[in-house]
Amino acid sequence: MALIVQKFGGSSVADPDRIKAVADHVVRTKRQGHDVVVVVSAMGKSTDNLIRLAHDCAARPDEREMDVLLTAGERISMALLSMAIIDAGAQAVSYTGSQAGIITDTEHGQAKVLAVRGDRVKESLASGAVVVVAGFQGVSADTKDITTLGRGGSDTTAVALAAGLGAEMCEIYTDVDGVYSADPRVVPEARKLAEVSFEEMLEMAATGGKVLALRSVEFARNHGVPIHVRSSFTWGPGTWVREVQSSMEQPIVSGVTHDASEAKITISRVPDRPGIAAKVFRTLADRGVNVDMIVQNVSTDNHADISFTLPKTDIPKAHDVMDGLVAHIGGSGFSTDDGIARVSIIGAGMRTSPGVAATMFETLAAEGINIEMISTSTIRLSCVVRADEVERAVQALHRAYGMAG
Amino acid sequence: MALIVQKFGGSSVADPDRIKAVADHVVRTKRQGHDVVVVVSAMGKSTDNLIRLAHDCAARPDEREMDVLLTAGERISMALLSMAIIDAGAQAVSYTGSQAGIITDTEHGQAKVLAVRGDRVKESLASGAVVVVAGFQGVSADTKDITTLGRGGSDTTAVALAAGLGAEMCEIYTDVDGVYSADPRVVPEARKLAEVSFEEMLEMAATGGKVLALRSVEFARNHGVPIHVRSSFTWGPGTWVREVQSSMEQPIVSGVTHDASEAKITISRVPDRPGIAAKVFRTLADRGVNVDMIVQNVSTDNHADISFTLPKTDIPKAHDVMDGLVAHIGGSGFSTDDGIARVSIIGAGMRTSPGVAATMFETLAAEGINIEMISTSTIRLSCVVRADEVERAVQALHRAYGMAG
Repeated sequence: MALIVQKFGGSSVADPDRIKAVADHVVRTKRQGHDVVVVVSAMGKSTDNLIRLAHDCAARPDEREMDVLLTAGERISMALLSMAIIDAGAQAVSYTGSQAGIITDTEHGQAKVLAVRGDRVKESLASGAVVVVAGFQGVSADTKDITTLGRGGSDTTAVALAAGLGAEMCEIYTDVDGVYSADPRVVPEARKLAEVSFEEMLEMAATGGKVLALRSVEFARNHGVPIHVRSSFTWGPGTWVREVQSSMEQPIVSGVTHDASEAKITISRVPDRPGIAAKVFRTLADRGVNVDMIVQNVSTDNHADISFTLPKTDIPKAHDVMDGLVAHIGGSGFSTDDGIARVSIIGAGMRTSPGVAATMFETLAAEGINIEMISTSTIRLSCVVRADEVERAVQALHRAYGMAG
Repeated sequence: MALIVQKFGGSSVADPDRIKAVADHVVRTKRQGHDVVVVVSAMGKSTDNLIRLAHDCAARPDEREMDVLLTAGERISMALLSMAIIDAGAQAVSYTGSQAGIITDTEHGQAKVLAVRGDRVKESLASGAVVVVAGFQGVSADTKDITTLGRGGSDTTAVALAAGLGAEMCEIYTDVDGVYSADPRVVPEARKLAEVSFEEMLEMAATGGKVLALRSVEFARNHGVPIHVRSSFTWGPGTWVREVQSSMEQPIVSGVTHDASEAKITISRVPDRPGIAAKVFRTLADRGVNVDMIVQNVSTDNHADISFTLPKTDIPKAHDVMDGLVAHIGGSGFSTDDGIARVSIIGAGMRTSPGVAATMFETLAAEGINIEMISTSTIRLSCVVRADEVERAVQALHRAYGMAG
């Protein structure tokens, strides 16, 4: 008998029929002799609807009140799922993030989990009940105010509860049946991966893979919580995300990801002096701009071009400071390009395989795709290309590394 | 500078435009120098929608989970109203019933308020903020579970907070502009009352007046909280419900109410022995049947007919026990009549005015309306008549007692 945390996303509880199907699955798991903690997101698009309501009621919705508002969505789904589980013949009790002891900092809208005080959850499990917990939310220890964890927050709730309660695994049920070697909408022959390491999943999440939120994977790696990503529509086995032992069989490249949500800003002809990059990226960070890739090329006359990528949504914030910044560092100007996309290959086997990068560049060259920026980590290679060429790049790389099933 | 509790019902916050209008009014009150606590219901028909969802998810929704579910409605409206108030230029903070210290018993769906521990509310008021509190909900001191207060619960929340915080008054904003001498849909010339006593309001609420819930008026009377019932659409002065000093000017009859939501059950030819009525009404009470009027007539041969009224919705529960009950007490049978209605006249001046009852009976007789049951209190007279004659009865009585403006 194990303790299992099962997390169900918004599409998994989008309507009463889906909720009843989830309840049946939870009761089956319980009847197999396991203790079950269920973490649930808001139904379907209900969070988007609440955000729209907020903007209809206030030009600039207050952050504390926005969190109070948004947590209503999970409150509804957790109560409906609990009553459906009870109706299906098991005991169940629902708890808000606060009641379940999800303690966070005070950053409304993107709070971080500081601790899990799961006393009420443990008591209810001991009494034989399934415990249903609202995802995406917690309570600030300082102010006792309700907080939300930001995008992908329900995954983080599930992993944090699994870590805090010592669960054997955390099952993330979603509307896809696992993690694929590439986005199946772009690469029809993409293969479902049986297993990926935490590090690979982190790189995938950071470079456009949408199945798991980055923060939840970090949390799972730091606490050693195995995640099983699987479908709540087929209920079949999905992809395990966990510590993977190196082996000869390990594929060099596990997956290709892509991301067209970023833009590129280039500052031209910056004097090549110490402290310039520090000044640029401190200024942008203070302004709240999330800079991702950074590339600097030194030219022959002691001037450099600095390029960086940022979410398209952060362009207005960056533009607020760019003019002053460029003047301050003595650059000649800056340009913004929102027609870019990034393609990345990820694989733990890359560490020990020379020639992986060359294959990537050759493949793109053979397709006539120009590379605008390059960035690397020990298990990832990313190239910035034109956005309208990125799908062709993904398809070519998927073939080149022999990832089709 | 006073502390004022303002309560807004579902129709007052039904959409973003209504919420912004309410926010403007609250900010105006605040700028007049008052401390303001706002109690808010769920938007429009959202509670009905949640109840429907529950029944779509579970054949018999669990009571604890139903309360968790329903409280999401006020959570949404309180957050939206708070952000609209902040947007309109005042400080505001929203609290759930639990956070506002509304302590109840454990009766899910119809919990009673046991205490108001308004520490967080007082702190926020002292800091200069408007405090927005979710109506209709509290938290059980015993189990720490969320509870709801049942129909009209937001009025009770408002009055309980006004009493607990020592507010100068409790303003109940609704979609009508006050308490009328009769339902204006039935009596077009009905007059808005400037003032009614707690006792009159209690009798009105108990006999079909829908403006205030009975429990909230009882609470206000017991704690001496003046209520001002007024419109959130016109914002004009409404009706004061408070302790009224007797005076010569007091009208004999303040209002006519009617109620067609009850049915009548008659048990015929019951032996006229001590303890029979006790047996009948204890059995029905144990079954959860809400008996209202009771009339017993003794016939000449030591047998009596016992008639009582009950909500139509309680008929199935009553029928479950009637056969056994009638046999047990030796009655000859029972009949159910759901084609009745009750018309009542209410007025504090009735205490000292002989002849009021005679006028009522004469008026109904002149209209050719038969009286099936009569019941009286010191300030109320009720007659049960045919349901299809009740509007005519209301109109005739309104004229007979000279209540038109």
